[in-house]
Amino acid sequence: MTVAKVWKLLRQPVGRPTPENFICVEEQLPPCDDGDVITEAEYLSVDPYMRYKIRQIPLNSTMVGSQVARVTESKNPQWPVGSLMVHYQGWRTHTHLSSKFLQTKDNNVSPLPDMGNLPKSLGIGVIGMPGITAYFGFLEICQPKAGETVLVNGAAGAVGSIVVQIAKMKGCKVIAFAGSDEKVAWVKELGADYAFNYKTTNIGEALSQAAPENINCYFDNVGGQFSAEVLPHLADLCRVSVCGAISTYNDDSKDIGAVSLTSPFSEATLIWKQLRVEGFLCYRWNDRWTEGLKQLQHWVLEGKIKYKETVFHGFDKMPSAFIGLFDGENIGKAVVKL
Amino acid sequence: MTVAKVWKLLRQPVGRPTPENFICVEEQLPPCDDGDVITEAEYLSVDPYMRYKIRQIPLNSTMVGSQVARVTESKNPQWPVGSLMVHYQGWRTHTHLSSKFLQTKDNNVSPLPDMGNLPKSLGIGVIGMPGITAYFGFLEICQPKAGETVLVNGAAGAVGSIVVQIAKMKGCKVIAFAGSDEKVAWVKELGADYAFNYKTTNIGEALSQAAPENINCYFDNVGGQFSAEVLPHLADLCRVSVCGAISTYNDDSKDIGAVSLTSPFSEATLIWKQLRVEGFLCYRWNDRWTEGLKQLQHWVLEGKIKYKETVFHGFDKMPSAFIGLFDGENIGKAVVKL
Repeated sequence: MTVAKVWKLLRQPVGRPTPENFICVEEQLPPCDDGDVITEAEYLSVDPYMRYKIRQIPLNSTMVGSQVARVTESKNPQWPVGSLMVHYQGWRTHTHLSSKFLQTKDNNVSPLPDMGNLPKSLGIGVIGMPGITAYFGFLEICQPKAGETVLVNGAAGAVGSIVVQIAKMKGCKVIAFAGSDEKVAWVKELGADYAFNYKTTNIGEALSQAAPENINCYFDNVGGQFSAEVLPHLADLCRVSVCGAISTYNDDSKDIGAVSLTSPFSEATLIWKQLRVEGFLCYRWNDRWTEGLKQLQHWVLEGKIKYKETVFHGFDKMPSAFIGLFDGENIGKAVVKL
Repeated sequence: MTVAKVWKLLRQPVGRPTPENFICVEEQLPPCDDGDVITEAEYLSVDPYMRYKIRQIPLNSTMVGSQVARVTESKNPQWPVGSLMVHYQGWRTHTHLSSKFLQTKDNNVSPLPDMGNLPKSLGIGVIGMPGITAYFGFLEICQPKAGETVLVNGAAGAVGSIVVQIAKMKGCKVIAFAGSDEKVAWVKELGADYAFNYKTTNIGEALSQAAPENINCYFDNVGGQFSAEVLPHLADLCRVSVCGAISTYNDDSKDIGAVSLTSPFSEATLIWKQLRVEGFLCYRWNDRWTEGLKQLQHWVLEGKIKYKETVFHGFDKMPSAFIGLFDGENIGKAVVKL
């Protein structure tokens, strides 16, 4: 009989999440019956989007999220003991996946791609959801052309760091913003033509100097005031890919569907600059997921995409790893290793 | 020697424009030399976009805008006396068009399409810029599919009334908002499935009832608080065509490129509903202008597009016709007849 440790949502955060919002409990898993599988987490993901997911789930729900897991018990020939998968069963050490669930379409269970000598954790990073987010969210929504100027913020993060490198591969000029001098130095290593620490830089002045020609593609992970300051520097017909808005996630007045006039994308600028602003969730490209992963893995193996990970050790670190995202603690992808 | 009356911008409006912002002066036109043409205005256009243009032109400039004009003197065989054109030389009774200007690409001078029995004023209306704005701005940006639900505001205006009818032709369900009961009645005649007077209706409640399935295409002429209230009712992957934002035009804090957080398109909703919000200017489709005009004229002649005009009489009415746009005085296209 397997006992799982599970992080549950105890209280709705008000503003920035705190450790008191979460509670770790033990759960006895059902037996592994015909067609079932039991897995053990090896790497768990923490991602900014979870801040919104919290608002959508009831109290005492398991915290949502993905993990790289190893099959430890199996009565399912598709998933022999020892095989590795990525699943989205949330913040838990052990997971019972029923025969019925495993047969469900869109269960978001997939084999971990063969990583060769690469770390398995990349399955929840550059060769996983964040990689897919960067790949399709940038290429499909921004439609960058060689010679265009691309702006990326959160550029040392899991997604932003990949966008910087894809944009350079596509022949673009890249202007990047990140939240520390160490991050800025890394983003320059990744090939950004200009990189700035947004905490010590006047965004408008930096853009005036680095991009007097104005921005053709803006890949936005930050939102809010950052975007407001960027808007005057967008070129006519600029494409804005709204991937995230981490600067606003702890502001409960900016919830999904809130009736408010507190956003940066002013109609006057949208109209006169003919901007296209598009939000997305990576699951839009579920049918092209494998194509994306293959391309990303290929680029990683060729050395064209570099990555960093900030690894937290131990399941007890889940809340602090998550909360740290809002303080910019991570460089590259934040993962928790068990 | 021809003397033109010309309306100039005397003072920048603060908020809603007033008659004191404009001054009418007389201007002696240059002689009609080889290749030149002199025209006399028959119909002049007033459009909401002019409120923004005012901010971009120096004081004492001629007010911008289009007109249907007749050639009264000509030393240019392409434009014989009596021929009709649409040009954009602004609020003026008579215009000298030099040989050099007439040879310039993108001078926005075009022959008035052959209107048959239709009023010539349609050349600045449904078979002109507002028609083109509706045609391409709706079809190209919203990409409506049969069976989808379309929301149009300003639906009794020059552009909105055409969008309502194109959307019905494309097999969509149409929900329309306008600013008086008379306008609402007309919009229903045009085929809108639901039409509401926004001044006496709770927008959110109306949409909950009329579109429980949520909105797939939102053609926005109004912006601001109206859009904020619409946002919770947009469907996943909704396309928003931002044509205008008349509710905000007199608010100088919402100028083009202003660094402010006062807009309705919240990032949380953009992301989680995967919305695409695009602003446009109709000149984007300059190379397809004739195609658009032909289709619009065809629809008008077939009776598939109906129109109304609010006609003001006399050149002295230019400022009041323009100012009236912000009070919703016009039903259909506002024009000034000379």
